[in-house]
Amino acid sequence: MRFVDLNSDMGEGFGPYTMGDDAAMLKIVTSANVACGFHAGDPIIMDRTVSMALANRVDVGAHPGFADLWGFGRRVIVGDSPKTIEKFVAYQLGALQAIAIAAGHKVTHFKAHGALGNLMFTNTEISEAVANAVASVDKDLIFVIPPRTEGERVAERRGLRIAREIFADRAYTPEGHLVSRKLPGAVIHDKDECATRVVRMLEEQAVFDIEGNKFHVRIDSVCVHGDTQDAVEVAAAVRSSIEAAGLALRPLSQHDL
Amino acid sequence: MRFVDLNSDMGEGFGPYTMGDDAAMLKIVTSANVACGFHAGDPIIMDRTVSMALANRVDVGAHPGFADLWGFGRRVIVGDSPKTIEKFVAYQLGALQAIAIAAGHKVTHFKAHGALGNLMFTNTEISEAVANAVASVDKDLIFVIPPRTEGERVAERRGLRIAREIFADRAYTPEGHLVSRKLPGAVIHDKDECATRVVRMLEEQAVFDIEGNKFHVRIDSVCVHGDTQDAVEVAAAVRSSIEAAGLALRPLSQHDL
Amino acid sequence: MRFVDLNSDMGEGFGPYTMGDDAAMLKIVTSANVACGFHAGDPIIMDRTVSMALANRVDVGAHPGFADLWGFGRRVIVGDSPKTIEKFVAYQLGALQAIAIAAGHKVTHFKAHGALGNLMFTNTEISEAVANAVASVDKDLIFVIPPRTEGERVAERRGLRIAREIFADRAYTPEGHLVSRKLPGAVIHDKDECATRVVRMLEEQAVFDIEGNKFHVRIDSVCVHGDTQDAVEVAAAVRSSIEAAGLALRPLSQHDL
Amino acid sequence: MRFVDLNSDMGEGFGPYTMGDDAAMLKIVTSANVACGFHAGDPIIMDRTVSMALANRVDVGAHPGFADLWGFGRRVIVGDSPKTIEKFVAYQLGALQAIAIAAGHKVTHFKAHGALGNLMFTNTEISEAVANAVASVDKDLIFVIPPRTEGERVAERRGLRIAREIFADRAYTPEGHLVSRKLPGAVIHDKDECATRVVRMLEEQAVFDIEGNKFHVRIDSVCVHGDTQDAVEVAAAVRSSIEAAGLALRPLSQHDL
Repeated sequence: MRFVDLNSDMGEGFGPYTMGDDAAMLKIVTSANVACGFHAGDPIIMDRTVSMALANRVDVGAHPGFADLWGFGRRVIVGDSPKTIEKFVAYQLGALQAIAIAAGHKVTHFKAHGALGNLMFTNTEISEAVANAVASVDKDLIFVIPPRTEGERVAERRGLRIAREIFADRAYTPEGHLVSRKLPGAVIHDKDECATRVVRMLEEQAVFDIEGNKFHVRIDSVCVHGDTQDAVEVAAAVRSSIEAAGLALRPLSQHDL
Repeated sequence: MRFVDLNSDMGEGFGPYTMGDDAAMLKIVTSANVACGFHAGDPIIMDRTVSMALANRVDVGAHPGFADLWGFGRRVIVGDSPKTIEKFVAYQLGALQAIAIAAGHKVTHFKAHGALGNLMFTNTEISEAVANAVASVDKDLIFVIPPRTEGERVAERRGLRIAREIFADRAYTPEGHLVSRKLPGAVIHDKDECATRVVRMLEEQAVFDIEGNKFHVRIDSVCVHGDTQDAVEVAAAVRSSIEAAGLALRPLSQHDL
Repeated sequence: MRFVDLNSDMGEGFGPYTMGDDAAMLKIVTSANVACGFHAGDPIIMDRTVSMALANRVDVGAHPGFADLWGFGRRVIVGDSPKTIEKFVAYQLGALQAIAIAAGHKVTHFKAHGALGNLMFTNTEISEAVANAVASVDKDLIFVIPPRTEGERVAERRGLRIAREIFADRAYTPEGHLVSRKLPGAVIHDKDECATRVVRMLEEQAVFDIEGNKFHVRIDSVCVHGDTQDAVEVAAAVRSSIEAAGLALRPLSQHDL
Repeated sequence: MRFVDLNSDMGEGFGPYTMGDDAAMLKIVTSANVACGFHAGDPIIMDRTVSMALANRVDVGAHPGFADLWGFGRRVIVGDSPKTIEKFVAYQLGALQAIAIAAGHKVTHFKAHGALGNLMFTNTEISEAVANAVASVDKDLIFVIPPRTEGERVAERRGLRIAREIFADRAYTPEGHLVSRKLPGAVIHDKDECATRVVRMLEEQAVFDIEGNKFHVRIDSVCVHGDTQDAVEVAAAVRSSIEAAGLALRPLSQHDL
């Protein structure tokens, strides 16, 4: 039997600022992608998030992004060499590993944030930089990546352990990319629609693009967003429908990847 | 037979900015204390410093400081809870560990930077926060600390592996603290005088305060500064005189601590 | 007839992060103290805050703090020379002046934030640095400061235009300082109690310390906090009671100072 | 008679870090473009640079860049709206204005730094954002821009006072852009060659592209770099040859623009 993981980004506050309701989300998801201090997060928030995850038996993963607090890691910073990207990813990963170890938990997966993650849909060089960082720091880390992307292909070639994820609330192009938020239908706002399409994709182990085409892929994890208005309700609806469909929710570290 | 270590702070540039001549210093010292990105250093500089250290068979240690790039970690930031200090130290330590692992090296010691290090001469709470960070991330790390300080006492109680260091160019008060830079005689500028007093302290395993009093302490390491005008010459003079005295220079990881 | 000003800190978000409900507060207060990008705020938020203030006929003032985004300017950074403080205050003030001019508004007052403001209760050197910054950039700026403090004395000696402010929700020591938040009674949480004591202080032009002693002072402005849970309700209650007492609310720029 | 200005970027250190020899350059140039704290510079360095410029009767201009200290403003940050760019330029400009006023000097020109400046060769939207910032803060500021660029066209449409500058050490494409540093001949390293071509361009009031084509343009200022190894010598050679050619060097504020 195959397991399903439910992941969400967490620990995205900074200093006095908060974002999302991590305490509520941690009762719903099975994996937490923890911001590592460059685009969001700080050592205290990372520790708090990891400790809460541990208390909720939720996996923690490193969620590094560009050094861009002002832009929340959503801006592409052009001009960093692949080597620079490799090293700032390694840096953030190690920082979270230490925070997790000190809290009695363990970093078991990895997922790139924001603009960095988006670049991995198509950019080979940057995907390789990120994969190199992960492989050189901890070869056992599970690399969370959308299927049908350059990041997936690079991770496969690199021999990384891969967890393929779908997005509960985002439409796909025929090429496997996310439909631009500027286009109609890019984001699915209705929580029941999110829940229904997630279960369909999981049961068929396939994604459907915005034109209705079907692509068979392996799906290990479902990403729900944590920073939108109704994030907790969407996540709860998705979780309920996964369970109602008889699929077994387990953190990635319990999957056979 | 006992070994002597010669340590210096390194990797203290940031982005386009450089500080000190690390390449030259790495041919002289046996241990490099590497800035971890909060008061100085960045992932690329950390990687370059660690890689150069490896090539020179020099140990690397984490050298965390306050999150204070503007003030180079020399300003005391009042108001951080001990927990915050503990976590930002763990964060920086983990970041360097990952960079080092990726470069094929290993972090084997720890030394606090600037204002954080100075606070550990007398402040119990902050010393405990720092010691907790080190112990909770890696109990085997060698904790580099001046003898006769609160930091040393806390590290002893905590059961850490300790390397006691003296400063080649700084005068001591009767209480074991550094004489304030504002007072005459605080800094020894003559490289031969630095070299002579270092050998005397090593041979007698004692420090001498500014009034001439002698205090027996164990000395494992000698700190030479890397960011002064004539840093390389002072370091070379200190190394030569240690070798001329028949004392064996070895990185801390080869000591029996 | 004398006017009363009601001031509050605003624009305290950063990038994707928000703090407080500025839109609601701007319908209640007559002066906005705008964060200038060092402890909070950024150019976009500053512009938005200034533009909203203009639309609500609310005065804007510069509200500089330490370069401490992580600690929200509440941490004392020890080691900056008075010259450094003077220059970072001038920098922030100028930044807001430009944003305000571009938006068709004008910076007419000044108030130090957080730890910097607290230091001005007692520290002569820092008060002089801040007063120098203001005087050297714009001698006509109104200097908002609590009475019975070193900051007030320095501003008087410097010949600045001064607006003396009281805090709606904070208790005073006999020396005129704020009672530490760690002590009972330091913060008045009940909005009606805040409103009642504000009117009493305004009518008697006096502050009362936590022991009941009365000190005659000139009061030009009342500070209400914007970042607490019930900030808007407290501010509305204070405003209502000032108006009910027949006192005329006007922005500082309309006062005769 | 027309005047020639010689400009250079200055104040590009940060905290303990230095870059270039500003003291030497200020004895050679007539205008200093001062970094404003986002990609380099800080309030203390800005004050020092402005004060030295004043002592040397050198004009000061604002030299804002992306909020990118790590990348020294040389990285393009993609995703900022034109509004964001407009506001961060206004912010930096105002910050320097206040520092200058406090030092008894005055900001009289403006020049964009690094990646921001490069984008203005071709990007209309960003050029308009920058021009809007300048116009909305101080319409009298002299806008320093290379001729034959989108930035120049936008500034003309906006009715700004324009100073057209050439680069002493950079080759041009037929389109008027800088030849990429990756291509041979992009940078002229020989100081005498720099000096000779500058005088030729000034005397003919024309630029020559890398293919030898000649384009008549108005030239008001010559940019010499401050952060290269032999910056001071190149600048001195350029100045000498301008003077030897009988051309009058004057700061931009004395030009009739």
